[in-house]
Amino acid sequence: MVSASAWLILILVWMSNSVRAEQNLRWEVGYMRWSPDGVEDVIMTINGHYPGPTIRAVAGETIQVHLTNGLPTEGVVIHWHGIRQIGTPWSDGTASISQCAINPGESFVYKFTVDRAGTYFYHGHFGMQRSAGLYGMLIVNSPQGQETLQYDAELDLLLSDWWHSSTRDQEVDLSSNPMIWIGEPQTLLMNGRGQFNCSLAANYGNSSLGPCNIKGGEQYAPYIFHVQPNNTYRLRIASSTSLSSLNLAIGNHNLTVVEADGNYVDPFTVPNMDIYSGECYSVLFTTNQDATQNYWISAAVRGRKPATPPALTLLNYQPTSASQLPLSPPPVAPAWDDYDYSKAFSNKIHAPTGSTPPPPSADRRIVLLNTQNNVDGFTKWAINSISLSLPTTPYLGAIKYNLTDAFNQTSPPDHYSPADYDITQPPPAGQVTTVGNGIYTFDINSTVDVILQNANTLTPNDSEIHPWHMHGHYFWVLAYGEGKFTDADAAVLSNSTAPPLRNTAVIFPNGWTALRFVADNPGAWVFHCHIEPHLYMGMGIVFAEGVDLLDVPTDGLACGLTAKYLMNN
Amino acid sequence: MVSASAWLILILVWMSNSVRAEQNLRWEVGYMRWSPDGVEDVIMTINGHYPGPTIRAVAGETIQVHLTNGLPTEGVVIHWHGIRQIGTPWSDGTASISQCAINPGESFVYKFTVDRAGTYFYHGHFGMQRSAGLYGMLIVNSPQGQETLQYDAELDLLLSDWWHSSTRDQEVDLSSNPMIWIGEPQTLLMNGRGQFNCSLAANYGNSSLGPCNIKGGEQYAPYIFHVQPNNTYRLRIASSTSLSSLNLAIGNHNLTVVEADGNYVDPFTVPNMDIYSGECYSVLFTTNQDATQNYWISAAVRGRKPATPPALTLLNYQPTSASQLPLSPPPVAPAWDDYDYSKAFSNKIHAPTGSTPPPPSADRRIVLLNTQNNVDGFTKWAINSISLSLPTTPYLGAIKYNLTDAFNQTSPPDHYSPADYDITQPPPAGQVTTVGNGIYTFDINSTVDVILQNANTLTPNDSEIHPWHMHGHYFWVLAYGEGKFTDADAAVLSNSTAPPLRNTAVIFPNGWTALRFVADNPGAWVFHCHIEPHLYMGMGIVFAEGVDLLDVPTDGLACGLTAKYLMNN
Repeated sequence: MVSASAWLILILVWMSNSVRAEQNLRWEVGYMRWSPDGVEDVIMTINGHYPGPTIRAVAGETIQVHLTNGLPTEGVVIHWHGIRQIGTPWSDGTASISQCAINPGESFVYKFTVDRAGTYFYHGHFGMQRSAGLYGMLIVNSPQGQETLQYDAELDLLLSDWWHSSTRDQEVDLSSNPMIWIGEPQTLLMNGRGQFNCSLAANYGNSSLGPCNIKGGEQYAPYIFHVQPNNTYRLRIASSTSLSSLNLAIGNHNLTVVEADGNYVDPFTVPNMDIYSGECYSVLFTTNQDATQNYWISAAVRGRKPATPPALTLLNYQPTSASQLPLSPPPVAPAWDDYDYSKAFSNKIHAPTGSTPPPPSADRRIVLLNTQNNVDGFTKWAINSISLSLPTTPYLGAIKYNLTDAFNQTSPPDHYSPADYDITQPPPAGQVTTVGNGIYTFDINSTVDVILQNANTLTPNDSEIHPWHMHGHYFWVLAYGEGKFTDADAAVLSNSTAPPLRNTAVIFPNGWTALRFVADNPGAWVFHCHIEPHLYMGMGIVFAEGVDLLDVPTDGLACGLTAKYLMNN
Repeated sequence: MVSASAWLILILVWMSNSVRAEQNLRWEVGYMRWSPDGVEDVIMTINGHYPGPTIRAVAGETIQVHLTNGLPTEGVVIHWHGIRQIGTPWSDGTASISQCAINPGESFVYKFTVDRAGTYFYHGHFGMQRSAGLYGMLIVNSPQGQETLQYDAELDLLLSDWWHSSTRDQEVDLSSNPMIWIGEPQTLLMNGRGQFNCSLAANYGNSSLGPCNIKGGEQYAPYIFHVQPNNTYRLRIASSTSLSSLNLAIGNHNLTVVEADGNYVDPFTVPNMDIYSGECYSVLFTTNQDATQNYWISAAVRGRKPATPPALTLLNYQPTSASQLPLSPPPVAPAWDDYDYSKAFSNKIHAPTGSTPPPPSADRRIVLLNTQNNVDGFTKWAINSISLSLPTTPYLGAIKYNLTDAFNQTSPPDHYSPADYDITQPPPAGQVTTVGNGIYTFDINSTVDVILQNANTLTPNDSEIHPWHMHGHYFWVLAYGEGKFTDADAAVLSNSTAPPLRNTAVIFPNGWTALRFVADNPGAWVFHCHIEPHLYMGMGIVFAEGVDLLDVPTDGLACGLTAKYLMNN
């Protein structure tokens, strides 16, 4: 017999676990006037906040977000970046892929399990709504007592970039004939705050910008990180930038990288680190410097000739006044085009000892040539000569109900052609690029190698950085290579030493990156360059596996051919 | 027996009639950069054109518009302003009322008969997309030989107003707490062209603006009306303004008003005329002036203290050079607040002799008090203390399928309360205004009187003009009155002499306007102030009659509760 008090304890334990096991959030997306960098504009909000609220969860919890679209005329979705949505592909929050965009005034319930502790974020995934400010952090802690990292407290840093032209105007310009490029961002933001046309570090005499005259209550006042001396902090970083690759530094402090994209990595220590759009990291640092001083935190543009000043804020050693500037000017980032520096950093990232290694070989290899092309006067990005145009019917429903008119049923090629394509030159005149929406379908549980092959853009002697982000899966980053991926490279792929498991990986100019993943998550998943204008211009592909195994809820399918099919059957 | 050649003739006649009987248009709505007034902005387009293409049809024709939404993230609809949609209420093009907004990438087919010759236009009816430039003219001519008016040629004039802030930003501001007013337009446009911060008439010495330096190919170069001397022209005018009431004049030429809102009127001649948003007119004028000169066409703001210069262009007597300015400065409009002048014009409009008179009495009278209210800090416009908030499920489908959760099933009141409401004062503190979406339901074929009762706004000593537009019906304008509508006024309503049949009627400050119509068109129909920001702030009501008689197609119902209902049944 169990006593009454023991029952009570059991019930209380069960209640505390069940409360812990599910978070119910009610969110409404809207717009408001806001001044993220000192220039008032209209920005996307969640429950009236920009950036969106930080979700803090514990691994194993189920998150339920009842999302209402409070925009006047636009649809909306939210993608939970880095969450694999195992068993819930309809909650991936990708318009045209996992669901129909939510209509103005309507709601959709995202429900998913955050299965793995780590640093994540969420953001809009319809048009360029991420660039419009629709993002926030999603932090998943280990269950109590199970965190293996040693630190005293956590700090969160969400990086983004900001334009003074609306995303509507950017979308119009990018899809114009001829294309009008959006240009470099006006401002880099840290936790949604930056300073346009002034500098926190103006008084050091090496800035062309004047001081900012910030009193502290402004919407664009910097988000200052307050710390206690002689503590170790876990700084969680997510980059929601639309375009910018960044280099992050904390003056006088080294950073020990311990997590990347929701996976622990073999710890390594650096004075600064590169962070590409779509990447998440945790770094540890110890506040072991002179506690009577403050220190710079800076993020500067990498990989593109910078036209935007670095984002700056302070690491404030309490009880030092937060208004006291550091002794020295902000850290100087590596030269924007020092790709060797970037590669050295990327190559430092390895899985920790004891991690599950990738399968020893792949069942299939697809080689994806990344090109910029002129298609009838429009500028597009294309993969194996196909530029992605998202259909109106979500792939997940179209595949499930076998609606073959919803998208092109011909799969894009596994390899680019011609095989002797010269990646060091702009696309040759005869190279035909089309706009399409065919998908790659994988056998369930098969192992796939993806070779992302970079190439020259339409501009001679120009090849750009592309951080590719995969939905629904993690992949092992087997290798980064120079030039064209060769058979010799293929032969040694499986020799990769402790490849890290990630969801975002960069390809360097004129180089390639080799990934391996297991197609073990039934659903339809987009895999794309995380640079928002690049995806908007077609730089993505769609994977599908095991959709026939799914019982897809109809909530997200009231558009396009799935609506027609479900309303008439 | 009918001979073979007779058969051929019959077939040819049938073919020519059937070709004439239906127009098939394929339209795509998009955005483009455009400079309607010399300042580049992004504007809404149809098939890449702003304003949208003019539809020219013959009474009795069926128009079919296959409309594709080419916007990146916004829904869209198009309303065919003035077309009653008899038997086709699902083609009325009103989001939340007759259909779901068309999703990005999707299409909807509008199919309707233009049963009555007249001057009409079309425009967006979702959010404030009309203000974003989504409009064009719809002209329905009488069948050949049946036009009773005598004229040599037609000219078309579409009036609009333009802001340099996007409609997204305007929507955000209007729904902010506290509300931020959009202000007066930057520019008035004629056929989509105007001049900001310069004047075509700068050289007459009475303008504070400099000359425009227009060479002729500019997007904002004036649309010049070229005419032959000694001809009579039918000038068709439609006002798609968002806010502005206008006074139109052609220097040195009188205007004979012959049509209003698709109905002939008893002709009368004026030197200039007032035109409210949502109104359409035809005027005849004769080019009987000195043919070596050109003449001004001007449109100036009325009813609001003007902060926008008049729209100007030229009536160019060919072969005189169009670059030759008129001898005198542009016509001077009546004082903006000379409402007696406006009322005198409105009272000149009568039905022509022999017109069908209204039914001698009404089955029901509703009295609609127009107020501006503060609702929890938000500024709203309300009718009988209810501010219209459109539901996500279209009324037409919700009523048809009896989806009672789609909108408030309680009808708004037929009369305002308290009965002694003081229309000369701002709303008293105790007056409770709510936001709602209940509808007025009429017995099919019943006759309804609507009394639009104006009142003071939230600002002391302020009452505004509101041009009310009814969908799905024409109404007889029985009378305009001063102050509060009384029983004495009611007693003489049916004595109205030759009341004109219209679809738009204005209420003057602190006055009332009495309308009568027959609820003979099964469907759900919005009746609203045609000032775009006023409707956006709730200034409308919804009528329904005979929806149970309809077999509503499901094409426009893939949203909200109709989607759920139809997908699950």
